[in-house]
Amino acid sequence: MADLSTCLPLTRSSVVEAHKLVKPHVHFTPVLTNKTLTALASTPQDLAGTRWEGRSPANPVLRLWFKCENLQRVGAFKVRGAFHAVERLKLEPGWLENGGRDKGVVTHSSGNHAQALALAAREAGIPAHIVMPDIAPPNKIAGTRGYGANVVFSGSTSAEREAAAARVIADTGARLVPPYDHPDIMLGQGTLGLELQEQVRDLIAAGHSSQNPTFNSTGQERVTGAEAKGLDAVMTPCGGGGMLSGVALSCEGTGIRVFGAEPEFEGADDCKRGFEAGERVESVRSLTIADGLRTPVGKLPWHVIYERRLVRGMYSVTEEEIKAALKLVLERFKLVVEPSAAVPLAVALFNEDFRSMVEREAGEQGWDLGLVFSGGNVAVDGLVKLFAA
Amino acid sequence: MADLSTCLPLTRSSVVEAHKLVKPHVHFTPVLTNKTLTALASTPQDLAGTRWEGRSPANPVLRLWFKCENLQRVGAFKVRGAFHAVERLKLEPGWLENGGRDKGVVTHSSGNHAQALALAAREAGIPAHIVMPDIAPPNKIAGTRGYGANVVFSGSTSAEREAAAARVIADTGARLVPPYDHPDIMLGQGTLGLELQEQVRDLIAAGHSSQNPTFNSTGQERVTGAEAKGLDAVMTPCGGGGMLSGVALSCEGTGIRVFGAEPEFEGADDCKRGFEAGERVESVRSLTIADGLRTPVGKLPWHVIYERRLVRGMYSVTEEEIKAALKLVLERFKLVVEPSAAVPLAVALFNEDFRSMVEREAGEQGWDLGLVFSGGNVAVDGLVKLFAA
Repeated sequence: MADLSTCLPLTRSSVVEAHKLVKPHVHFTPVLTNKTLTALASTPQDLAGTRWEGRSPANPVLRLWFKCENLQRVGAFKVRGAFHAVERLKLEPGWLENGGRDKGVVTHSSGNHAQALALAAREAGIPAHIVMPDIAPPNKIAGTRGYGANVVFSGSTSAEREAAAARVIADTGARLVPPYDHPDIMLGQGTLGLELQEQVRDLIAAGHSSQNPTFNSTGQERVTGAEAKGLDAVMTPCGGGGMLSGVALSCEGTGIRVFGAEPEFEGADDCKRGFEAGERVESVRSLTIADGLRTPVGKLPWHVIYERRLVRGMYSVTEEEIKAALKLVLERFKLVVEPSAAVPLAVALFNEDFRSMVEREAGEQGWDLGLVFSGGNVAVDGLVKLFAA
Repeated sequence: MADLSTCLPLTRSSVVEAHKLVKPHVHFTPVLTNKTLTALASTPQDLAGTRWEGRSPANPVLRLWFKCENLQRVGAFKVRGAFHAVERLKLEPGWLENGGRDKGVVTHSSGNHAQALALAAREAGIPAHIVMPDIAPPNKIAGTRGYGANVVFSGSTSAEREAAAARVIADTGARLVPPYDHPDIMLGQGTLGLELQEQVRDLIAAGHSSQNPTFNSTGQERVTGAEAKGLDAVMTPCGGGGMLSGVALSCEGTGIRVFGAEPEFEGADDCKRGFEAGERVESVRSLTIADGLRTPVGKLPWHVIYERRLVRGMYSVTEEEIKAALKLVLERFKLVVEPSAAVPLAVALFNEDFRSMVEREAGEQGWDLGLVFSGGNVAVDGLVKLFAA
């Protein structure tokens, strides 16, 4: 990981710089729309039997645009941060001279970040050491080894994992690349926000949204590009907050409102609770089905998200709402996403606090809302378990 | 349905004519590639424990291109035939004058064709009567009604269904639109073949296939377009044979080889068996998981497929091979397809007769092979049942 002192500042133009480094290594993933889901989001929900029962249902106008990072390399947005971190490392003064190419990189992760870093390291021709809990599923271990990484086993508590990583560093001199709490990762992951903005602007300019005949009439807050109408708002999942903070940076100064989405199960909505308390929640123990979002938000992401007020609000959803959104994506969109990736859609469809806020703020004109499908790494066995219950 | 005497002849240029009528009503579905699946198709398979055990594994070079009709309207290619049939009906001399617009159309189907015809009729402003067995799943009934169709229940044997359709015709004067055994349907469904040819040629010209640096060297049999290298072969699923025969017509005279893929379970490989016996198999009773392919091939499709020799060969796969291919599409491609749609991929990956033929005919140069993902209509509950066992 590049030393903090050599990192780019946390600004939109740093995200633009990061995009130059990352772009040759990642897929330019498509932005897709779906008539059924857009119609559903713009229809008042039946609240009987839900936690909103008794309210009168909100009636927002939402046009949904989905950034398909489930079709990204390694099946998730995580490659953006990993490639950026490795490319920045290569540019760090003294890194090469001090044998950085032989020492390589190390991380502790059993998720998408592990495979992403393994891939980025392999393409840079440097070793990757991945610390995984010895209870990690065999397919995850095989997958990570498949990208050429050296898998190092540890116990499953975070103290044990960090100790194992420290031993790797002592033995090999490898540089630690954390999964989210670092400027290189945040800026790299934020590059998807730049693409999303550009793609939606192009699609709207090409007449893609039939429900929105005038393209330049809601631009009062917008300073993006001349007359071009683009996104009004964007919402991403929030686990460690690397992507949410990076996307927020990519939107700074554009007038695009940024929101974060979390599962509420067993307190996984730590960032939302932090917003309400005015203080970051530092630890979480949740087994939400949105397994990419079990981590508490990191310190640097929190700084961008909350202290700099670059995120307008956090919203959370129940496990049932996540499953319902996931089912709609599978059956109506014909796309496979992991449960974490369905969380923003679940907010847009089922969170009445979010929906009534949109109705109030966007009025009849409505919003063009970008949602990030963050990843697609879910095994068929996992889907079977999820929906068999 | 247009009267047979007014139908276009079964030629490639009729498919081009059909495309003009169909195009404004259907999605121009994407052609996608997948590195992992292309690499897997070009790797010798481990045959231990398979029905091919003991053979030495074939080593073909295959570059796979997937036509994503799972992302089509109504979730399947069937809309192409339905819209074409309705548009041709509107052009039929006397149809309008004789009150055709009030009489509408009728079919007996509980699958994708029912919803496709309901949609096409609704957009043409004419009534659709859909005969469904009274044991049809409630979601299929609701789906068909959702497109505004009048659902008429019958018993579940084909005699009962045909009798019910005949009663609707006697009562209303509606015109029968069969699901595959008619020129309008075959030509309409064949339009996906034209698009696939054009899209692959454009993608290759844009340098999309990195494994194929010279683009004009295998063209000896090709008369398509100047120097442009495109598909060498295409394979579609075969149930009633409407799509396979239509795609074969779309390839006539281009040099593109056409193959059909079937499930072999309980004799659903009727077209393959017909090829071997030199005579069409007229009835099939199979409960293959590829539920779109349980029907025997129709008379007119058979004429195109076999008697006119427009299809080079038929290949079949087991239920386990279909499931394995489906799992790869879900997990690696991140796309939802129905089991029937995974059958051609299963042939390309697991049928050693097909693979050794490709190795022999295509040599080191290999083939660019188009595969049709015919539909994506599978409920999450259906996937759970399929993979829980």
